[in-house]
Amino acid sequence: MPASYETRITRAILDAYHEKFVRSLVSDVLIVGAGPSGLRAALDLALKGRKVTLLEKRLSPGGGIWGGAMAMNEVVIQDEALSALDGIDVTPRPAGSGLHVLDAMGLASALCAKAVQSGVVVLNLILAEDLCVHDGRVGGVVANRTGVGERLPVDPVSFQASAVLDATGHEAALVHMLRRRGLLDRDGPPSEGPMDAVAGEESVVAGVAEVYPGLWISGMCVQVSQGGPRMGPIFGGMLLSGRRAADLIDRALVAG
Amino acid sequence: MPASYETRITRAILDAYHEKFVRSLVSDVLIVGAGPSGLRAALDLALKGRKVTLLEKRLSPGGGIWGGAMAMNEVVIQDEALSALDGIDVTPRPAGSGLHVLDAMGLASALCAKAVQSGVVVLNLILAEDLCVHDGRVGGVVANRTGVGERLPVDPVSFQASAVLDATGHEAALVHMLRRRGLLDRDGPPSEGPMDAVAGEESVVAGVAEVYPGLWISGMCVQVSQGGPRMGPIFGGMLLSGRRAADLIDRALVAG
Amino acid sequence: MPASYETRITRAILDAYHEKFVRSLVSDVLIVGAGPSGLRAALDLALKGRKVTLLEKRLSPGGGIWGGAMAMNEVVIQDEALSALDGIDVTPRPAGSGLHVLDAMGLASALCAKAVQSGVVVLNLILAEDLCVHDGRVGGVVANRTGVGERLPVDPVSFQASAVLDATGHEAALVHMLRRRGLLDRDGPPSEGPMDAVAGEESVVAGVAEVYPGLWISGMCVQVSQGGPRMGPIFGGMLLSGRRAADLIDRALVAG
Amino acid sequence: MPASYETRITRAILDAYHEKFVRSLVSDVLIVGAGPSGLRAALDLALKGRKVTLLEKRLSPGGGIWGGAMAMNEVVIQDEALSALDGIDVTPRPAGSGLHVLDAMGLASALCAKAVQSGVVVLNLILAEDLCVHDGRVGGVVANRTGVGERLPVDPVSFQASAVLDATGHEAALVHMLRRRGLLDRDGPPSEGPMDAVAGEESVVAGVAEVYPGLWISGMCVQVSQGGPRMGPIFGGMLLSGRRAADLIDRALVAG
Amino acid sequence: MPASYETRITRAILDAYHEKFVRSLVSDVLIVGAGPSGLRAALDLALKGRKVTLLEKRLSPGGGIWGGAMAMNEVVIQDEALSALDGIDVTPRPAGSGLHVLDAMGLASALCAKAVQSGVVVLNLILAEDLCVHDGRVGGVVANRTGVGERLPVDPVSFQASAVLDATGHEAALVHMLRRRGLLDRDGPPSEGPMDAVAGEESVVAGVAEVYPGLWISGMCVQVSQGGPRMGPIFGGMLLSGRRAADLIDRALVAG
Amino acid sequence: MPASYETRITRAILDAYHEKFVRSLVSDVLIVGAGPSGLRAALDLALKGRKVTLLEKRLSPGGGIWGGAMAMNEVVIQDEALSALDGIDVTPRPAGSGLHVLDAMGLASALCAKAVQSGVVVLNLILAEDLCVHDGRVGGVVANRTGVGERLPVDPVSFQASAVLDATGHEAALVHMLRRRGLLDRDGPPSEGPMDAVAGEESVVAGVAEVYPGLWISGMCVQVSQGGPRMGPIFGGMLLSGRRAADLIDRALVAG
Amino acid sequence: MPASYETRITRAILDAYHEKFVRSLVSDVLIVGAGPSGLRAALDLALKGRKVTLLEKRLSPGGGIWGGAMAMNEVVIQDEALSALDGIDVTPRPAGSGLHVLDAMGLASALCAKAVQSGVVVLNLILAEDLCVHDGRVGGVVANRTGVGERLPVDPVSFQASAVLDATGHEAALVHMLRRRGLLDRDGPPSEGPMDAVAGEESVVAGVAEVYPGLWISGMCVQVSQGGPRMGPIFGGMLLSGRRAADLIDRALVAG
Amino acid sequence: MPASYETRITRAILDAYHEKFVRSLVSDVLIVGAGPSGLRAALDLALKGRKVTLLEKRLSPGGGIWGGAMAMNEVVIQDEALSALDGIDVTPRPAGSGLHVLDAMGLASALCAKAVQSGVVVLNLILAEDLCVHDGRVGGVVANRTGVGERLPVDPVSFQASAVLDATGHEAALVHMLRRRGLLDRDGPPSEGPMDAVAGEESVVAGVAEVYPGLWISGMCVQVSQGGPRMGPIFGGMLLSGRRAADLIDRALVAG
Repeated sequence: MPASYETRITRAILDAYHEKFVRSLVSDVLIVGAGPSGLRAALDLALKGRKVTLLEKRLSPGGGIWGGAMAMNEVVIQDEALSALDGIDVTPRPAGSGLHVLDAMGLASALCAKAVQSGVVVLNLILAEDLCVHDGRVGGVVANRTGVGERLPVDPVSFQASAVLDATGHEAALVHMLRRRGLLDRDGPPSEGPMDAVAGEESVVAGVAEVYPGLWISGMCVQVSQGGPRMGPIFGGMLLSGRRAADLIDRALVAG
Repeated sequence: MPASYETRITRAILDAYHEKFVRSLVSDVLIVGAGPSGLRAALDLALKGRKVTLLEKRLSPGGGIWGGAMAMNEVVIQDEALSALDGIDVTPRPAGSGLHVLDAMGLASALCAKAVQSGVVVLNLILAEDLCVHDGRVGGVVANRTGVGERLPVDPVSFQASAVLDATGHEAALVHMLRRRGLLDRDGPPSEGPMDAVAGEESVVAGVAEVYPGLWISGMCVQVSQGGPRMGPIFGGMLLSGRRAADLIDRALVAG
Repeated sequence: MPASYETRITRAILDAYHEKFVRSLVSDVLIVGAGPSGLRAALDLALKGRKVTLLEKRLSPGGGIWGGAMAMNEVVIQDEALSALDGIDVTPRPAGSGLHVLDAMGLASALCAKAVQSGVVVLNLILAEDLCVHDGRVGGVVANRTGVGERLPVDPVSFQASAVLDATGHEAALVHMLRRRGLLDRDGPPSEGPMDAVAGEESVVAGVAEVYPGLWISGMCVQVSQGGPRMGPIFGGMLLSGRRAADLIDRALVAG
Repeated sequence: MPASYETRITRAILDAYHEKFVRSLVSDVLIVGAGPSGLRAALDLALKGRKVTLLEKRLSPGGGIWGGAMAMNEVVIQDEALSALDGIDVTPRPAGSGLHVLDAMGLASALCAKAVQSGVVVLNLILAEDLCVHDGRVGGVVANRTGVGERLPVDPVSFQASAVLDATGHEAALVHMLRRRGLLDRDGPPSEGPMDAVAGEESVVAGVAEVYPGLWISGMCVQVSQGGPRMGPIFGGMLLSGRRAADLIDRALVAG
Repeated sequence: MPASYETRITRAILDAYHEKFVRSLVSDVLIVGAGPSGLRAALDLALKGRKVTLLEKRLSPGGGIWGGAMAMNEVVIQDEALSALDGIDVTPRPAGSGLHVLDAMGLASALCAKAVQSGVVVLNLILAEDLCVHDGRVGGVVANRTGVGERLPVDPVSFQASAVLDATGHEAALVHMLRRRGLLDRDGPPSEGPMDAVAGEESVVAGVAEVYPGLWISGMCVQVSQGGPRMGPIFGGMLLSGRRAADLIDRALVAG
Repeated sequence: MPASYETRITRAILDAYHEKFVRSLVSDVLIVGAGPSGLRAALDLALKGRKVTLLEKRLSPGGGIWGGAMAMNEVVIQDEALSALDGIDVTPRPAGSGLHVLDAMGLASALCAKAVQSGVVVLNLILAEDLCVHDGRVGGVVANRTGVGERLPVDPVSFQASAVLDATGHEAALVHMLRRRGLLDRDGPPSEGPMDAVAGEESVVAGVAEVYPGLWISGMCVQVSQGGPRMGPIFGGMLLSGRRAADLIDRALVAG
Repeated sequence: MPASYETRITRAILDAYHEKFVRSLVSDVLIVGAGPSGLRAALDLALKGRKVTLLEKRLSPGGGIWGGAMAMNEVVIQDEALSALDGIDVTPRPAGSGLHVLDAMGLASALCAKAVQSGVVVLNLILAEDLCVHDGRVGGVVANRTGVGERLPVDPVSFQASAVLDATGHEAALVHMLRRRGLLDRDGPPSEGPMDAVAGEESVVAGVAEVYPGLWISGMCVQVSQGGPRMGPIFGGMLLSGRRAADLIDRALVAG
Repeated sequence: MPASYETRITRAILDAYHEKFVRSLVSDVLIVGAGPSGLRAALDLALKGRKVTLLEKRLSPGGGIWGGAMAMNEVVIQDEALSALDGIDVTPRPAGSGLHVLDAMGLASALCAKAVQSGVVVLNLILAEDLCVHDGRVGGVVANRTGVGERLPVDPVSFQASAVLDATGHEAALVHMLRRRGLLDRDGPPSEGPMDAVAGEESVVAGVAEVYPGLWISGMCVQVSQGGPRMGPIFGGMLLSGRRAADLIDRALVAG
């Protein structure tokens, strides 16, 4: 029986996705969470020539960017952080007081588009369930299809990487997987601090770090892990945090 | 009391969003649904100089593109439809049999990014609840915040436009608002037909039309309204359908 | 970086599943629903040398067998239907009045095990969403991952076959897809009739038929489609219905 | 295209709400929770000439007043607390034993009406998510639209004020935001004590205090924070607690 | 054992509510739905000396007023409808184009407060389940506690009145109770028409009527019952509709 | 291994329940619904020497009696219906106007206790799913455990009887099973009429009938099947309706 | 206007329930939970002449009796506990090994019927939310309508008594209200122990006690409070525990 | 009345299930959880002549096998573990690197089929709620119908055995029942460790043990109880763990 047009379409997708999925099993850097810091880190690492896989539990990437503040889809970037937009096709408009506004839809889509064009592999609807840890070093992430592992007794698969970046925001999902086992300080701060936008914009960048061999943090996950303050609907620090994570991870890989 | 840094950020967003929202109250074309045909139509109309507002009920635009087929995030475009990608920064890869595959994340984000860069105003988390009809002509859309009007007794607002495009896909939401009142044929087909990808790719383009004065249809909404066949995870027809809607609406506005 | 043990395990599964999935895209017979009649039909067709794919929306096959009656996990087979157990490794125990009882767990698992051993490909957690119809003939099934298409805007894929069997039981899912479009008599019986076990055991077998070119029915779907009576927790008719469907489809393929 | 009647209506609301929202970004006193103590405090502070913003997470203000006791919509005020009704257009009826009954609908609506007429800005469907803390002082509240931040990754905005009053009742929402971070005694009482109406009516007034620089408590939040007893469906203490909070905050602002 | 303070409080409420409830069993006019038209009708009828009972299924009265438009809590009144605010303590502000804006919190609370002060008895958390019809005339309403009758097999009680007003808005709950039985035209319009604010503001007032002996309609229920257009977030027509219902009912009672 | 105390307890229950269940498979009369009319009919039939099985889908029998009216647990009986309490150990108190009040808890429990003492077998948590119909006569009921058949693919069992009584109240569950198949007039009244307590108390008794060979109706099911009026929280008619059903069924069995 | 028949019925219920409710505000003994031990204690106390109020959160009393074991509605009583059935109209059947079986429906209804006939006031759909504690003594219970206080901000009422009995079973609801505040040992056993039917039947009786001035425990609440073992579906100990609680409370009231 | 065909079917099932259930009340070994290790242990113990009862809370046995990895229904077995498949009718295919792949549907069904054929009694839809503990030894399991005990106040029954095996996987349900009471070390590891497939495959076998007199653990429950690492979608260790549990338990029973 000759393959129908529908069969040929299905086959083309099956093959392309299988090839992409298999390719993503081993990466230089595996990033969990496609919000502002995760996407920016992925883009910068890809531009530096790293093989990057980005896992996102939702259907679409972009995280908190699309919603702006309180569902008003505009976001703010401060003067000092304009470099965070380098290479992304967006046009900030000055809003006084050293602030600039950007259309949230434009920022989220242009940032994601640039990352994919630069070679980042984004796998969506994939939920990180656990970490691989061998000999005291994080070597990968255990993941499942969103909606499958939470409601059915179905086993996950694993993704391997030289470095893993927890960019899951308020959840700090990977950090908590280690804390729960006492592999990271169980008595760390239980959450980020109250909002202090000035201090927060600084500490979210300064706090980027490798918190356990092989595991890095960026974005809101930094504040949650270290008790730094919340920042509000300004995205400069988030993006710069991702950039800094890319820099530090790249250097570590070179050194490694 | 001097405004704090957080207050200045909030104020910048409030003002920018208010200005954008007010501007969107009166448009040349109002499109409901930011899936492939809605986004493509919006982009083409903006490139033709039209003032376009695009309402999307979800947090992120892109509709069914992100998920590819069965959550394998790759999509297919046929040879004949490659022009549907004009002006969008994506790289289809040949897959044999006259088919090409594209990374779904790349297509969805690049299409949205290009639309916003071209001047389309996208308002997300806005749900169309009804139409404005004056003297036998659709003159706008009645809309509410997603999640508000469905669960609380809160009134909607209205958006005015010279032409309204129903790009809500399988829902055919605007078409059904008229059918429910008998303003469109109540005995029309209740849904799209079974899948026939060859026939479907043609009819989804050929069926673009003004179904009621002021109300146009594109994408899957065409098939649902006219009983055309389903098409499967191939996006050529969807994008071309949006392009054709843009052409026809633009000409009608010129003629109008 | 050498592939870790976890990566090699994941890779083995990815490749094996991809190969199986691709192979299942084109079958001789595509059966939807892995309950008693669907499993029995699949087993018989495989034994006749047919290439059979069986789609099941739940995690496990077996349908209503596991639960026996009212969650008492025993089932009944009548004398006249003992041949329905041919080739399945189970031991019915006489229960008087021409009836035999079987452990439900034993029947469900042995039937499925035998089908898989005979070459049937079972894909679980796959939900049939629609049919492919070309030129007035059913040529395949449109399907999605269970839980994906119902709650997210994600497109399905398609499975192609020379014959499709609706073994979805009370749902009669495929039959209703055609009825909804008026391709089958919209005024057919809305459901099976009240229970009449004697009459039902006969009509569920007698009513097996090709109801539309390329689409066959077996099991409870027969009763729903034709208004035959319900049968109760006796599985003879269900299994024989599957056997008869296998016979008739095989002959039609030979003739075809 | 001239603006339609619907557009002019929408525009009028957009402008009026934007103006009101912007105005509320910086207040003398920001009160969270429009129940009896929050509304009474807001009214008194407005009468003293303070600029007051009142955030309410529900659609309507009034909190527990509407439901009286066990959904019997009458409430009780004791002799000693009749002054709590000063300036509110209600008519208590003597009920013996030094008690008076009032129609609950009348009290809730008259109290809110008077507050708004006195200049209080009430923003409803706004949920406090966090606090702004600068240099050891609460300087504002982080808030989102009800239903948005809880179910979508959407950032909040912030409201700034010289003093913030936690009038969120049993939740003691703001107090818990500080406790969770260890900024207030983590070992404080976990909840209010058992009911003791006599003692409770006194302590709910006596316990009004500034519990952290810039953060005040009134109403049931006092009992929860300090382990005072529950009071039952008598509203004298609640209203007087709001009055006392208004007095103390006003004096602090004068002194501040 | 002497009654404790808590017991005396409980007793006072029990007695006051029992007295109010018993009093409400027989009214001149029974209004279902405490939204803008129901509250305004109740207020006017009470001012005319009628004994009015108002049943509201939610905890608080006010219906759609609190939410303004799209949760922006401002509402609009047109020049011609300013008389609809007579006797209510609110201050509309001119907004150009013959429109005025009002704080939604202020309008909802002042309207309810005035109604209660004028003698209207409001029973909240009471859901109308059915009508009493004797000899072809509506003579009362069958009602239950909200949340009780819907989930438990618990019988309702009945409220008797000379006239019943359906002010349940889009639900048109009482009208549908008669339609369901064929006591009102089953083929009436299934819902209100699309939005046309100019036409709608007129027809919502003009359409006030006694649709069945003893049963009147006002507000959105008029549009739903007669297929009139939706109106948008302008409340002039709604309030005037309530006023007209009060006038017509009062005259009918005089005549009756 | 000797049986433990717990094993002996479990064994005693298993055996007693099995014996009772088996015994109930064939009855003279099978009643579905243990509300007032079902319980009263069961009691009277048992007193007449009939073998009666009563299926109840909830955990406890009593139906709407426990809740009185609007969860006030008192019920009313009129003078003319006092005989409906014959043989039940309750004490009605005169309430004027020819009415008597009874404690709802007392009535529900005493009625059920008397039925069981008289030999009625009550099986609770059993949901009727369908009917057995042989040669145009209802011969039994198809039933499942509550909560099993609705959410899992598990087959039901069947109960056989000479007469079946639908006492399922507003649901009229058995009547609708026949209507759905067109075995009873599909165009019958869709529900009971509006409330008219005087007329309803009569018609609920007068309308008791065998609506299909082998299927009887009593209680609210009479009103729903015949469009008779609702009755309100007075239980005289309900109980008398059950008594009349018992009489008529008993006579039919004698004649049969 | 003369009161209609429906109005007179409603009025009779309102008055009867109001009188009963008011009467129940002050009792000798207030029992929370109408399961086997609560009902038996209530019955015995009423037979001793005490004024007893019994609060039950569900619609029907009987607790776990109706369901027997695993929804097989038979229960077991041991030889030594047959006296627990004194005065209840049931007929245990010997089941060997010193055990007797009883129809669960018969036991639950007869026990409740006897309690009501003996003067116990049962208020159903009433949920205990808290306790009244004055000067170190429990003096009553704070309660709300089931479903009201849990989902709406509605205040409860209070019930006063000389002694309060926690018969809420596994929940040990009242005990936990004191534990949560540290008024009872916070470090007590977190739950009952594993099942040991022999030991459990003894300790559930032996452990009946006044655990805080004014607060008594019986039934499973004893095991939960004291870490005694679970007992299984044998009801002798439960009923005897209720009897012992009645004895001890009665003596304490005499002594008190 | 002669028993109908439906009655005879129902009777046959009732009797067969009752006989099987009664027989299962006392076993040599009681296994909770019919996943890979539970099924394999059950099969081996039955082959050794032990009387085995297997309780499964879901409708179907097989646990996590059906879903393979991430719903790709293939599983992996390593060279060293091929003996784990002894006696099961499946055909592993070499996948390189010492790994073999198996069809998941085939493995799950063949394993269960073999267990039942070997005499294991599987009771499905039965949820373990607690343990029986007498004199410091686990002597059985307290269980209820799935869905019954969780939502209704219905008592469980008990199953007695010489040895109990906790094969409930990640839940470690029985282990937690003892931990909660402090009968097992409350400070044990809160969960399994991060994934390390090499180490995990060893420790899941090595850690099989009797953790409390009468209570054994196997499969993932070993890792959870002892903090061993997760293993990923490779089933060798799981099956071998079950085999080792069977060996050790059998020896203990011989020794016992």
